[in-house]
Amino acid sequence: MVPTPGPPARRARRGRRPKGRGDAREDILRAALHEFARRGYEGASVREISRGARVDPALVYHYFGDKEGLFVESMRAQMHPPSEGEVPAKGSRSERAERVVRAFLDRWGGRGEPTPLLALMRSASSDPEAAALVRDLFARQIVPWAAASLPSGDIDRSVALIGSTLFGVAFLRYIVRLEPLASASAEDLGRWIGPALLRYMTESLD
Amino acid sequence: MVPTPGPPARRARRGRRPKGRGDAREDILRAALHEFARRGYEGASVREISRGARVDPALVYHYFGDKEGLFVESMRAQMHPPSEGEVPAKGSRSERAERVVRAFLDRWGGRGEPTPLLALMRSASSDPEAAALVRDLFARQIVPWAAASLPSGDIDRSVALIGSTLFGVAFLRYIVRLEPLASASAEDLGRWIGPALLRYMTESLD
Repeated sequence: MVPTPGPPARRARRGRRPKGRGDAREDILRAALHEFARRGYEGASVREISRGARVDPALVYHYFGDKEGLFVESMRAQMHPPSEGEVPAKGSRSERAERVVRAFLDRWGGRGEPTPLLALMRSASSDPEAAALVRDLFARQIVPWAAASLPSGDIDRSVALIGSTLFGVAFLRYIVRLEPLASASAEDLGRWIGPALLRYMTESLD
Repeated sequence: MVPTPGPPARRARRGRRPKGRGDAREDILRAALHEFARRGYEGASVREISRGARVDPALVYHYFGDKEGLFVESMRAQMHPPSEGEVPAKGSRSERAERVVRAFLDRWGGRGEPTPLLALMRSASSDPEAAALVRDLFARQIVPWAAASLPSGDIDRSVALIGSTLFGVAFLRYIVRLEPLASASAEDLGRWIGPALLRYMTESLD
């Protein structure tokens, strides 16, 4: 990191726009994702993030407590489970599987660089603490949602296997850019990996 | 990186043991994996790798040409497809799927830290050049093997989907350490993800 001229606090203040409460929070989350994607969890700094969001670093601490809180919150915003609108509880199994694939793709690779995915994979693979935070997100966020919408059974396992299917595709599609995954449509992907997802969503695996 | 005292060439020479041709090459590959896992492709240096292998840097260039050649070779050694012994061409479909899972686990997570996997995921997710090398490995190494052992069809797609299944499990098992994937046996994993692998290995997906 190259030191920038001038006191950082003043630079941040100078660049700051008047913002509503929600705007600033959103800007911080967006800047955090970008910074975690670029440098990974360990390399990212709250100072750099607040500069990217054009807010005072104190505001970051005010909203998120510390870098760990900020990482969890920026990931949580991307890992929130599909809503009822995205994946209706009714509908055929294959429709639902395709919807899960589509919800995931919209969230992680909608436009351009899949920043959240890069942030997560780079952070987790370079830092055990970030990996632990991802684990917590699964336990606190994804599993409770799944428990309400998947049939009974080993929910932890179902969630882990669904997650592994989606992460694996995302790694080869967005990071390695391996064909034909890289340029497949959501429909293609739904058809290819849908049956595996469906099985994890609906069947006993033993 | 902290500069070490004394001229590096002399240090390397001092630590060097007499080695057979194959030994030194193996030592370099091992040290390279370790270094790529620690620092990613961009951050790793041939100097540091030769120090780890206790050989003169010139020998690294002699064997592998440059850092790119060394990366490709150290990954290739880990990505070579399962041998006939590991995954017999005969055998039931479910046996073969379980053998593929087992061959992958042996190679990537046999003992302790899954260094090759970390090296690959960290390098690819932090560096487009490393991602391109991984892509090349698929095209030059994995696909030709698969073409000889999978039924006809879209081989690129089958290989990509098999790869995505294994990488996804590996990411959650070794990096995030998410249960129950983290402590599952190869048998469990074969039972859970085997059907998906089998489908990619044997069925038309259209």
